[in-house]
Amino acid sequence: MNSGKPKIVIVGGGFGGIELAKKLRKKAVEVVILDKHNYHTFQPLLYQVATGGLEADSIAFPIRKIFKGQKNLTFRVTEVQKVIPQENKLLTTIGEITYDYLVIATGSTSNFFGQDEIQENAMPMKSIPEALNLRSLILQHLEAALIAPTPAAEAELLNFVIVGGGPTGVETAGAIAELKKHVLKNDYPELDIQKVNIYLIEGSPELLGPMSKQSQEKSQKFLEELGVTIYTSARVQSYDGSLLTLADGRTIHAKTVIWSAGVKGVVLNGLDPTCTVRGNRLKVDKTNKVDCYDNVYAIGDVAAMLSDETPNGHPGVAPVAIQQGKLLAENILNKIEGKPTSHFKYFDKGSMATVGRNRAVVDINKIHFQGVFAWFTWMFVHLMTLVGFRNKLVVFVNWVWSYFSYDRGTRLIIRPFLKKADIIKLNDKYRSSETQEGVS
Amino acid sequence: MNSGKPKIVIVGGGFGGIELAKKLRKKAVEVVILDKHNYHTFQPLLYQVATGGLEADSIAFPIRKIFKGQKNLTFRVTEVQKVIPQENKLLTTIGEITYDYLVIATGSTSNFFGQDEIQENAMPMKSIPEALNLRSLILQHLEAALIAPTPAAEAELLNFVIVGGGPTGVETAGAIAELKKHVLKNDYPELDIQKVNIYLIEGSPELLGPMSKQSQEKSQKFLEELGVTIYTSARVQSYDGSLLTLADGRTIHAKTVIWSAGVKGVVLNGLDPTCTVRGNRLKVDKTNKVDCYDNVYAIGDVAAMLSDETPNGHPGVAPVAIQQGKLLAENILNKIEGKPTSHFKYFDKGSMATVGRNRAVVDINKIHFQGVFAWFTWMFVHLMTLVGFRNKLVVFVNWVWSYFSYDRGTRLIIRPFLKKADIIKLNDKYRSSETQEGVS
Repeated sequence: MNSGKPKIVIVGGGFGGIELAKKLRKKAVEVVILDKHNYHTFQPLLYQVATGGLEADSIAFPIRKIFKGQKNLTFRVTEVQKVIPQENKLLTTIGEITYDYLVIATGSTSNFFGQDEIQENAMPMKSIPEALNLRSLILQHLEAALIAPTPAAEAELLNFVIVGGGPTGVETAGAIAELKKHVLKNDYPELDIQKVNIYLIEGSPELLGPMSKQSQEKSQKFLEELGVTIYTSARVQSYDGSLLTLADGRTIHAKTVIWSAGVKGVVLNGLDPTCTVRGNRLKVDKTNKVDCYDNVYAIGDVAAMLSDETPNGHPGVAPVAIQQGKLLAENILNKIEGKPTSHFKYFDKGSMATVGRNRAVVDINKIHFQGVFAWFTWMFVHLMTLVGFRNKLVVFVNWVWSYFSYDRGTRLIIRPFLKKADIIKLNDKYRSSETQEGVS
Repeated sequence: MNSGKPKIVIVGGGFGGIELAKKLRKKAVEVVILDKHNYHTFQPLLYQVATGGLEADSIAFPIRKIFKGQKNLTFRVTEVQKVIPQENKLLTTIGEITYDYLVIATGSTSNFFGQDEIQENAMPMKSIPEALNLRSLILQHLEAALIAPTPAAEAELLNFVIVGGGPTGVETAGAIAELKKHVLKNDYPELDIQKVNIYLIEGSPELLGPMSKQSQEKSQKFLEELGVTIYTSARVQSYDGSLLTLADGRTIHAKTVIWSAGVKGVVLNGLDPTCTVRGNRLKVDKTNKVDCYDNVYAIGDVAAMLSDETPNGHPGVAPVAIQQGKLLAENILNKIEGKPTSHFKYFDKGSMATVGRNRAVVDINKIHFQGVFAWFTWMFVHLMTLVGFRNKLVVFVNWVWSYFSYDRGTRLIIRPFLKKADIIKLNDKYRSSETQEGVS
């Protein structure tokens, strides 16, 4: 691994890290990409894994396969424990790794805003293991409801709360509502399906904050048509695993609370804390260089490029990460060759969210449309963005099949739900063992 | 659940239990089916899940969906802790369940023949969680090999041993050999692929014991063409997790040992031990009634119907379980109505095994054929037997795609490998919790 060429180490195989590494193909640099998983995750479809619509393997792609034949690249499954920027060095679970340029593309994780009790009891959905754990939990709660000893215990098991009315929250609420409508009534004939309630809780007055007024209203209407109860301008005060209390005093008894109310950057240990801004993101300049260092960059969700046009940075979506990764490849190569670097400018292709069958909302610049055509647009864009032909094909087959059968294929409790405390314990145990990997 | 009709409780949603319950549709009985998973597993393809060829969800099928609309049936996810035959009662993790007729269709599990050290260190492959755990282990060992500190440590990680030369062992060895040939050389360009060794160890002088001489020889030839080292007439003496020792003193250093050398029945606690014969199976008469009881039956792998024609009982394959389940439905109904019952006679449709791409062996009565046509026959029969149209479709798409791309889709470490001791610990913990389920 010592070629004498400048060595670029990328931490994270998400949209940004992958794009950057691909653009460095056949360039006179040595590339090392690190990820704690051996696969890339297509995060926009995680909610379909959690709600039984897709198999986990369909939205994940082996990182090694992405870089097949890329001779200047090394991939390692590992976790970074610490950066030592003064020595241009990473400490990882597989030993020390030095770098000339470090790119932090670690993405984001659920933000519980310091509320430990909520963090312990609400379900995140930011990774494939988390989505599968949630799928198991939902199905186990339905099974448990059948044998609940009291009506109160049954109600708790059949109330599903989604916190956060962004695209993930809206899509998840819609998917659970469709599960209820099309699948549960057949699967659980003993169950009074009317007892299944889905709540969507959003802090601001509207769902889908950054989208057009039209899309906001329409998505709310779509969700209500599907029977979702929406609380806007509502904040979660506490959740103890059974009782969720809102700031205004209203309560919901629910065993399942899905948390999509916010994210925070995954920052590496060892970095100067003054480089970190709100949302645990790294403050970067317009070339994505982290402010405190000369040779450390951050792209995607973990980067905060604050400027007059983007006072809060860019939205945490795949196109930002991809475009930043692409430009950073050019900029690092230019910097190595002593050429001028260029500034990042986000090209916003629009945004969209799907609520359910034939129900989606799309904003492209000034054009807004909703309904069936929006839904097909949503499916087409997501299919095209999925990595790998096999994945495209399998997801397409699943969607077509679901469309005509009104069914979901994968409502299986393959690995039962594990509590967070147990996942953390196992992670710690296995991290120190020879297999070098954690559980989640 | 108290209809006054005779209540038939079936423990196990495998091939036998499912077939029996289906045949009781619209009959004047109450049917309860219990399984610790909420899905039926298509066991013949587990090895493809373990070796990255198929997604787990494609070979599993929700049990609730199988019985959609079957009004006289109740399904529960639970584990039976004990039978109390004197009181016609089961103790389960969800409480007591009474029966008029009990059918034990619990199948089989890996048999380590009392060798605790081997049991602790070798990998079984009899359930979906086990197959996924094995997939993670294989992939983690490849990752670890890249950073192995010494050539000896590397060799241990790259030696794969399969113990048992029945269909599962032959198919697994072939699948790993093809993984090496078509996938690893692209995925791990840093690795000297010649260092990956696959061993198949069989106690008797021939592979595929019950098949024709021609199939035995041809499958051995196919495996050797794929680079598998075969040791016949070889018995494993010990395996400590790194060093495997054969009875004749030969040794193999290997971190991965897959155990397909034998199975034993999964017998419920509380049954008279004198009803159990070799292989931990329940001795049944020709109507599948367990010898010691009047209203307890066993079908499939857990049943031993010993007679002059079948001194060792029937082979542990799906067709036996299905045919027994089908006949038992008739026999129980006849018994209830006071009509005569009939004796089981196995209709052997033949047997087959696949070694790899274009390489399979098929015996149908006196007809034996091998190679490409056998391979297509194998695929066709397995596709047709898979439960559910979506599963057929997704498996078909995966196979066609693999055929043309020489690739495997799902080599992802979705949930990293867990040691058996940890799985048992978690199982015990969660079994006693409200979610009523274990980890494996």
